Amino acid sequence: MEAMSEDVTAQAFDLNAWSQVQLQRTEAALSAWVGVSAPAGLGEAMRYAVLDGGKRLRPLLVLAASEAVQGNAEAALRAACAVELIHAYSLVHDDMPCMDNDVLRRGKPTVHVAFGEARALLAGDALQALAFELLTPEGEAVPDAMQARLCRLLGAAAGAQGMAGGQAIDLASVGLPLSEDQLRQMHRLKTGALLEGSVLMGAACGQVAAVTQQALKDYGAALGLAFQVVDDVLDVVADSATLGKTAGKDAANDKPTYVSLMGLDGARRHAAALLQESLAALERSGLRDTQALRALAHMVVDRSH
Amino acid sequence: MEAMSEDVTAQAFDLNAWSQVQLQRTEAALSAWVGVSAPAGLGEAMRYAVLDGGKRLRPLLVLAASEAVQGNAEAALRAACAVELIHAYSLVHDDMPCMDNDVLRRGKPTVHVAFGEARALLAGDALQALAFELLTPEGEAVPDAMQARLCRLLGAAAGAQGMAGGQAIDLASVGLPLSEDQLRQMHRLKTGALLEGSVLMGAACGQVAAVTQQALKDYGAALGLAFQVVDDVLDVVADSATLGKTAGKDAANDKPTYVSLMGLDGARRHAAALLQESLAALERSGLRDTQALRALAHMVVDRSH
Repeated sequence: MEAMSEDVTAQAFDLNAWSQVQLQRTEAALSAWVGVSAPAGLGEAMRYAVLDGGKRLRPLLVLAASEAVQGNAEAALRAACAVELIHAYSLVHDDMPCMDNDVLRRGKPTVHVAFGEARALLAGDALQALAFELLTPEGEAVPDAMQARLCRLLGAAAGAQGMAGGQAIDLASVGLPLSEDQLRQMHRLKTGALLEGSVLMGAACGQVAAVTQQALKDYGAALGLAFQVVDDVLDVVADSATLGKTAGKDAANDKPTYVSLMGLDGARRHAAALLQESLAALERSGLRDTQALRALAHMVVDRSH
Repeated sequence: MEAMSEDVTAQAFDLNAWSQVQLQRTEAALSAWVGVSAPAGLGEAMRYAVLDGGKRLRPLLVLAASEAVQGNAEAALRAACAVELIHAYSLVHDDMPCMDNDVLRRGKPTVHVAFGEARALLAGDALQALAFELLTPEGEAVPDAMQARLCRLLGAAAGAQGMAGGQAIDLASVGLPLSEDQLRQMHRLKTGALLEGSVLMGAACGQVAAVTQQALKDYGAALGLAFQVVDDVLDVVADSATLGKTAGKDAANDKPTYVSLMGLDGARRHAAALLQESLAALERSGLRDTQALRALAHMVVDRSH
C-alpha cells in the first residue's frame, strides 16, 4: 500500500509547474547578478550569453537535488546560477570560429557574431570567474564549509578533468574512429561532468550520508550520459528550428556520435536503459523527495529539443 | 635608534635569496599541479603556458604578504599558484589572434602558435578552473573559511569588475583619447586587480585587523599601478629581446599609455611617487615583517623587464 501511494505521488508531480517556480527564481537571480556594472560592453555580452535562453537543465538539477536533501535555499540558488554560468561560458567559447564556428545558438546569433570575437572571449572568461564569485558571498547565509565544497565541486566539473578536458578530447577526435568506451569517456567529461556536478552541488547544499552521495552521483552520471545520447539522436532527427541551433552539425563535422556508433534505434534503446539506471540510483539514495529528480530524468530522455 | 635598526634590517634583506627559495617551492608546486593527467594534449598546453616562465611577481606578492601576517603556509602556496594560473590564462587568451594577436611571449612562441587556437582557448579556460580547484583542497590543511575567502578574493580580482573588466576597457579604448583618470581606472582593473588581489590573498592566509587589511590593500593598489606605469615606460625604452615580448606594441596599436599621457619623464616620476605611496601604506599596516613586501615594491619600479 505504501509503495502504491508513493507511486501515486510520483505520477501526480507536475514537473512543468515545479520548473516554472524554480526558473522564475533562477532567471531573476541571474538577471540581478550577471554583467551588472561590468565595464565597456562586457556586461551586455555576458547578459546576452546567459539571459532568456536555454532549458536551464543544470540549474533545475541543482535545485531538485537540493530539495531532495532539504538543502540551504540561498546556497542552492547560487549554485544553480553558477553551473549555468559555466555552461553558458562554455557555449560562448565553443561557438567561436577557432572552435565550432557556429553562428546560431538558441535561435539567436552567437555571442561572437553579435559582439565580436574579442568581447566573446572576455565575456566567457568573466562568466567563469563570476560563477565562483556567486558561490562565495560574504556573510552568514551560506556557511564557509558549504562555499568551499561548492567551489571544489564546480572547479572539478569545469576544469581539465571535467568539461574543458572533454572538449579537448572532442577537438582531438574529429575524424577519428572512436570506440564506445572512448566516446563515453569524452562525453562523461564534456557534458557529463557538469550535469553530474550540478546534482552533487545540489546535494552539497544539505547534509547527506556517503551512500546517498554516491547514489546521487550515479544518478547524475547516468543522466549526463543519457543527455548526450539523446542529443546525438536529436542532431539527426530534429531540424534547426526545433533545436534552436544548427542541426546535422556532428555528421557534417565528421564527429563520432552514439548514432554513428549504434544506429538510431540502438542509441534510443541506450538512452532508455540509462534512464532506468538513473531511476534505480535514486531508489538506492534512500531519499524520499526525489520526484523532481525523477521527472527531470524522464524529461532529459523524452525531450524533443 | 629603533627606526635606524629597522632601516638596517631593510637594507640587509636579500630579495634575490628570498625569492629563490619562494620560487623553488612555487615552481615545484605548479609542476606538480598543472596539467597533470589532463586529456588530449590539453595538459601539455596548460604546462607550456605556465611553467618555466615569467617573473612570478604575483606568487611572490602572495607569499610575502602571507609571511608578513604569519599565514598558513599551505594556503599561501596554493594561493600563490592560483593567482599565477589566472595571470597565465589571461596571457594565453590575450595573445590570441582575436585579441592582441601576439606570437612571442617570454621569448617563446605563444600558446596558440604552438598548440593551435582551439587548444589555447581551452587551456586558458582550464587554467582558470584549476586556480579555484587549487584553493579548495579536501582535508584540514586549509580551513574552510580561508578557502571560501580566497575563492571570493580571486573571483573578484579575475572577473568583470577586475581583470576581465579591465581588458574589456582596454579593448574598447584603442585609438581613443583617455584622460589620466580613465587610464588609471583601466589599469586598476586590468593589471591592478590581480596584483592587489595577490596581496589580499596572502593576507587572507592569516588573521589581520581591518586597519592592516586596508593598509595592505593600499599597498597593493599603489604597487599595481606602479607596475603598469613602469610597463608603459619599458614598452618605449626596452627592446623585445630584453622584454621577452614584442616591444613598442602599444604605440603601434595606438593604445593610450602613461608615456603618451605624461611623457617619459613624467611617467618615471609618477612611478617613483607610487613606490613611496606603497611604502607608506606598509608603514601604516602595523606589521613588522614587511621586508619582502618592501623589496618587491622597489623591484617593480626598478626592473628593466
